[in-house]
Amino acid sequence: MRTTPIVQKILSNYEGETPGVKSNLARILMEGALGGTGKMIILPVDQGSEHGPARSFAVNPGAYDPHYHYQLAIDAGLSAYAAPLGPLEAGADTFAGQIPTILKMNSANSLMGPGAGKDQAVTAAVDDALRLGCSAIGFTIYPGSDQMLGMFEEIRALRHEAARKGIATVIWSYPRGSISKDGETAVDVTAYAAHIATLLGAHIIKVKLPTAFVEQDEAKKVYDGQQIPVATLAERVAHIMQSCFNGRRIVVFSGGAAKGTDAVYDDTIAIRDGGGNGSIIGRNAFQRPRADALAMLGKMVAIYKGQA
Amino acid sequence: MRTTPIVQKILSNYEGETPGVKSNLARILMEGALGGTGKMIILPVDQGSEHGPARSFAVNPGAYDPHYHYQLAIDAGLSAYAAPLGPLEAGADTFAGQIPTILKMNSANSLMGPGAGKDQAVTAAVDDALRLGCSAIGFTIYPGSDQMLGMFEEIRALRHEAARKGIATVIWSYPRGSISKDGETAVDVTAYAAHIATLLGAHIIKVKLPTAFVEQDEAKKVYDGQQIPVATLAERVAHIMQSCFNGRRIVVFSGGAAKGTDAVYDDTIAIRDGGGNGSIIGRNAFQRPRADALAMLGKMVAIYKGQA
Amino acid sequence: MRTTPIVQKILSNYEGETPGVKSNLARILMEGALGGTGKMIILPVDQGSEHGPARSFAVNPGAYDPHYHYQLAIDAGLSAYAAPLGPLEAGADTFAGQIPTILKMNSANSLMGPGAGKDQAVTAAVDDALRLGCSAIGFTIYPGSDQMLGMFEEIRALRHEAARKGIATVIWSYPRGSISKDGETAVDVTAYAAHIATLLGAHIIKVKLPTAFVEQDEAKKVYDGQQIPVATLAERVAHIMQSCFNGRRIVVFSGGAAKGTDAVYDDTIAIRDGGGNGSIIGRNAFQRPRADALAMLGKMVAIYKGQA
Amino acid sequence: MRTTPIVQKILSNYEGETPGVKSNLARILMEGALGGTGKMIILPVDQGSEHGPARSFAVNPGAYDPHYHYQLAIDAGLSAYAAPLGPLEAGADTFAGQIPTILKMNSANSLMGPGAGKDQAVTAAVDDALRLGCSAIGFTIYPGSDQMLGMFEEIRALRHEAARKGIATVIWSYPRGSISKDGETAVDVTAYAAHIATLLGAHIIKVKLPTAFVEQDEAKKVYDGQQIPVATLAERVAHIMQSCFNGRRIVVFSGGAAKGTDAVYDDTIAIRDGGGNGSIIGRNAFQRPRADALAMLGKMVAIYKGQA
Amino acid sequence: MRTTPIVQKILSNYEGETPGVKSNLARILMEGALGGTGKMIILPVDQGSEHGPARSFAVNPGAYDPHYHYQLAIDAGLSAYAAPLGPLEAGADTFAGQIPTILKMNSANSLMGPGAGKDQAVTAAVDDALRLGCSAIGFTIYPGSDQMLGMFEEIRALRHEAARKGIATVIWSYPRGSISKDGETAVDVTAYAAHIATLLGAHIIKVKLPTAFVEQDEAKKVYDGQQIPVATLAERVAHIMQSCFNGRRIVVFSGGAAKGTDAVYDDTIAIRDGGGNGSIIGRNAFQRPRADALAMLGKMVAIYKGQA
Repeated sequence: MRTTPIVQKILSNYEGETPGVKSNLARILMEGALGGTGKMIILPVDQGSEHGPARSFAVNPGAYDPHYHYQLAIDAGLSAYAAPLGPLEAGADTFAGQIPTILKMNSANSLMGPGAGKDQAVTAAVDDALRLGCSAIGFTIYPGSDQMLGMFEEIRALRHEAARKGIATVIWSYPRGSISKDGETAVDVTAYAAHIATLLGAHIIKVKLPTAFVEQDEAKKVYDGQQIPVATLAERVAHIMQSCFNGRRIVVFSGGAAKGTDAVYDDTIAIRDGGGNGSIIGRNAFQRPRADALAMLGKMVAIYKGQA
Repeated sequence: MRTTPIVQKILSNYEGETPGVKSNLARILMEGALGGTGKMIILPVDQGSEHGPARSFAVNPGAYDPHYHYQLAIDAGLSAYAAPLGPLEAGADTFAGQIPTILKMNSANSLMGPGAGKDQAVTAAVDDALRLGCSAIGFTIYPGSDQMLGMFEEIRALRHEAARKGIATVIWSYPRGSISKDGETAVDVTAYAAHIATLLGAHIIKVKLPTAFVEQDEAKKVYDGQQIPVATLAERVAHIMQSCFNGRRIVVFSGGAAKGTDAVYDDTIAIRDGGGNGSIIGRNAFQRPRADALAMLGKMVAIYKGQA
Repeated sequence: MRTTPIVQKILSNYEGETPGVKSNLARILMEGALGGTGKMIILPVDQGSEHGPARSFAVNPGAYDPHYHYQLAIDAGLSAYAAPLGPLEAGADTFAGQIPTILKMNSANSLMGPGAGKDQAVTAAVDDALRLGCSAIGFTIYPGSDQMLGMFEEIRALRHEAARKGIATVIWSYPRGSISKDGETAVDVTAYAAHIATLLGAHIIKVKLPTAFVEQDEAKKVYDGQQIPVATLAERVAHIMQSCFNGRRIVVFSGGAAKGTDAVYDDTIAIRDGGGNGSIIGRNAFQRPRADALAMLGKMVAIYKGQA
Repeated sequence: MRTTPIVQKILSNYEGETPGVKSNLARILMEGALGGTGKMIILPVDQGSEHGPARSFAVNPGAYDPHYHYQLAIDAGLSAYAAPLGPLEAGADTFAGQIPTILKMNSANSLMGPGAGKDQAVTAAVDDALRLGCSAIGFTIYPGSDQMLGMFEEIRALRHEAARKGIATVIWSYPRGSISKDGETAVDVTAYAAHIATLLGAHIIKVKLPTAFVEQDEAKKVYDGQQIPVATLAERVAHIMQSCFNGRRIVVFSGGAAKGTDAVYDDTIAIRDGGGNGSIIGRNAFQRPRADALAMLGKMVAIYKGQA
Repeated sequence: MRTTPIVQKILSNYEGETPGVKSNLARILMEGALGGTGKMIILPVDQGSEHGPARSFAVNPGAYDPHYHYQLAIDAGLSAYAAPLGPLEAGADTFAGQIPTILKMNSANSLMGPGAGKDQAVTAAVDDALRLGCSAIGFTIYPGSDQMLGMFEEIRALRHEAARKGIATVIWSYPRGSISKDGETAVDVTAYAAHIATLLGAHIIKVKLPTAFVEQDEAKKVYDGQQIPVATLAERVAHIMQSCFNGRRIVVFSGGAAKGTDAVYDDTIAIRDGGGNGSIIGRNAFQRPRADALAMLGKMVAIYKGQA
């Protein structure tokens, strides 16, 4: 595997990190149609946990089979495939070496009542990632949740163990709990949530694309007073990148529930123009017919390459 | 022990799993009257914990003795016998090598008041399973309970240790807590609960036979909109199998409280026709006179073999 | 130490258990005036913890001294002496090898307010039992308490460690919490509590002598419907033995607060006639003048031997 | 270091204990002006934690310096000096070998709000005691607190580790929580609290001097019915000693807030006459001018020696 | 590295501490413009966690980049730079060996709702400090919080591990919780909070500059009765130093939110005149334009050297 100067530049930002972690970051950065560009598209499939199997897969029944997702990610030339323990164990041999994988380490579900708190269960071990040949672990934090401090301490321990064993860490940072519904995608809260993930030592940060809403009063004074530009989506992406060590960390963005392809392409253009590193796209990929999904992902690749 | 092509096909779905675990799955799949068919019947005896000794055994007093259950499972040609630590320790020598055993690792009881939560206590260690020659550990989760996340983290750790030591994992997935009484056996909830067990890395999943009721509003839209066929019991079994990695995992079904043999046979036929892997049948077996139980189990075997 | 056929028969019920544990069970079964009969009388002294020193010992001040209890148990020809860490450490050298000892591992006290829950503190380690030459550890569980599941997990870990190190486990099973005052000694609840202890892998189970009251509605249906004989105390003892793997486990019974010798003898006769393994008798022994206690214990021995 | 017959007699009560622990007990028993008499005076300085620095030391500003206390204890010929980690680390080299030290392992403070519970934080490790050359660890329990069971389990673990490493254990037993203000020093509660410490395996027990008040109704019946003599302070001290294994454990008494020397001497005489092992005296020592403190401590020594 | 007599004197106060810890304290004490004077200025950058990135850095956007802070601390001749895991990992190679670093081990944030308690999450491990070449770990405690006891036990464990591995410990002691808003900087509470940090074994203590307000009634009696001088800021600094083992521990003071340079200089003069060891200054440094910050820090150095 050769790397490109832009990938070398990205890797150099992870100072003091083990060669093992850097190698795994490089595997993701050099994989697929965007290999070597510093951009990436990741396919995450943990919707079965979040919403149950029928709500996730009935619209496109082939997707009940874990092999479907491996194959989709490979055929679309994506950078990595992320899933919980069970689905990876259902395809790890068949697709060994064909695409970098990310073991999603914790999960919530919509059977949880309010008494369970805003929290997730850790459902895998770092050694599972080693055994299954994964390049990274993935972990969700809920900044704003009353269980937040415990979640931070869980990922602290997992990240530490993973890094020692040469595995990279991706943090999904989703504000929740003490925050209003609009605030969960507010630009100040999203920047804050992304920044918290960088402080925790995440190698790759995943946040939702932010709106122009500002949630916190103290933050509003600063966004207004300093005239931080957040009017366009591209500006907001740029602000998130700045909030992640001024661009020294890889940040990918998700777009949420399934929607039209034009909306997906607009998001992709904004991420590219704002300097983001790419997309993490689940339901919008696997809930479409396979041919449609491949076409859409192909166009996203072209956008990131500046060819569309 | 020779294996059959159908068993080889099932084992191949457990990708990246240790040969030790696969060997133990094979022991269960090759045991007894259904050996080699890909079907199985398991005798579980943890009713003494759930309901106390008199409610479990007084109707058939021979069943107070743990040896009774070992012998019943062996004489009926079943695939495995599952029980907590104490009963296995009361027969492990006498019946060593005569039938695969499953060490049930956690238990609840009906002396628990509401303050104890919807939870179970872990009452054995993986090394007990090794010491007693068990092929698998069994563990109950309560999706929907406020204690659910803790239960998931317990089985994560136990499953990880068991797999490292070559022991398979069976998950009993029983929705409870934030769910209505009808919802506990609703088809959407049962499919969801089974799917959660697969995500956790279960090798064998045990759920109750579902009704046609749909509990969650968001799910109802999908079941109606996508016209998922769940009118007959066999269709519902097929839907559960689909929800378990499209059939890549072994799923067995329980039928609940003691009932007439015709109802048991109807369930068995539906499991067979829906593509399920078999039955886990406790009270309906050991609360009948031994001769009746042997006759009933014999007929169930015949049904699974397509001979009845 | 030679063993008798009846002791050999009892030991054979502990299948898969280590020779170390069986040897320690044999030490207790072969000790004292009842050695070799399969019957036993144990002196437990943890009243100082439960009720404080004055309420326990002022009536017979010699009993303030831990040596008093060692000597009483030895002189009365009892089978074992059970106490917490501190008292054993006050006599372990002086009486080394003179009587089997049981290290009581957890304790409650009557200074606890309701906020502390129905729970006990673990106040010793298994290695203390090894160091002090004990034959067994003792542990109290409170089936019905909101803290029950935690207590079960504590004894699971301690029992596992003890068995690995060749030490037997005695479980005191005291229903408490979600149960009515009368229910704490109800026959259904006592049988259930004893059964739970067997499921947890106890080698010796200690319960209170049950009354004929039935606490749980679901159980009442079975006790009435199946006409389980529980009218006499001996019948209830027999029912408890049946509930403990049909007699495959050693069960001893306690009689509670100090009372007249005739009542004690009646209890003893019922335990014998019901097939119980013996008595665990504390306050009724050490709160009597030493000569009276020796006389009473001597008569109990005679009853168990069928000589009275 | 030679020991005296009375010290040998005391050491012989710790049966089954390691020679390391006995050696450290001997170091304390043979130290200073009371060396070899079986009596001891300990200087404890954890008031800075309990009440803050100004309330503890402003009245005698030299006492802000940790060296002050080491020197005071040495010059007064005391038996040991007890303090938390920080202060010992501020003098451990300078005073190495000059006086036995006791590392106080847990602490509370008066900044704690009611939400923190009646509890303390463990603020040192047993290995700190080894590193700093301490003879013992000290630990406070609050019998009656809702956090009591957790505190018992903490000291269980610390005592176990300390004994294995040859370090003795001193338990401060302070009733608190479910007990009335008067009850905290009631004779029945104090005897009970002292007894609990002995059950936990304490080598030295520290309680407050009790009043004649009896807190618990059940206890009152016994104190009245058995006519336990508790009218004089000396009688109450004797009752506490009796409650600690009939005198088989070392018990020292504290007198509370600063007061006149005559009151201190009266306490000392009562401890001596009741058979107590000595005093643990903090504020009454370091909140006096150094010369006054030395004079007062000298007189206490004389009282214990029967010379005053 | 040569040390000065004043530094040797300071190091000698850490009795019984490992040479590794003393070496790291010496590195900080000998670094930069104040090297060898016994004074120090530390740059802490954890505002991104406490207030989010925009509120921290938008006023001076260069500060979004972690390299900015390393370079500022180096160019200003400061003694050390303190930050969480992520930012240190973004510059540890580039600036290796150029300035001592302190790994801030725990963090809070302003997304936390009230249900999360007054607490912080531990977000790094001691081995991270070793790997990144840090001289010390930093840890915040909240005396007065309901979570205080847990925080104390966390730093106990971390400090113990760090000292064993030759790393020094800095404790940020911030009263919070059961204390009034004014009380958080009251002189009695600040002295108490600093004293608690010394008891916990902190090598360097960080508190806020106190006001003349006295919070606790019991303390007020002593401050008034003993006429403790706390009218001027320098007197209050002296009182804090006295409360930290009479000056045997290094104490640095923070000034809070950004303010004018004159106010900063007045604080610095008071710290110097009161015998404090120096300043820890974050927002007042990095929220100014770089040139202004360098000028201000230069003047602070001159003040500490008695040259201004």
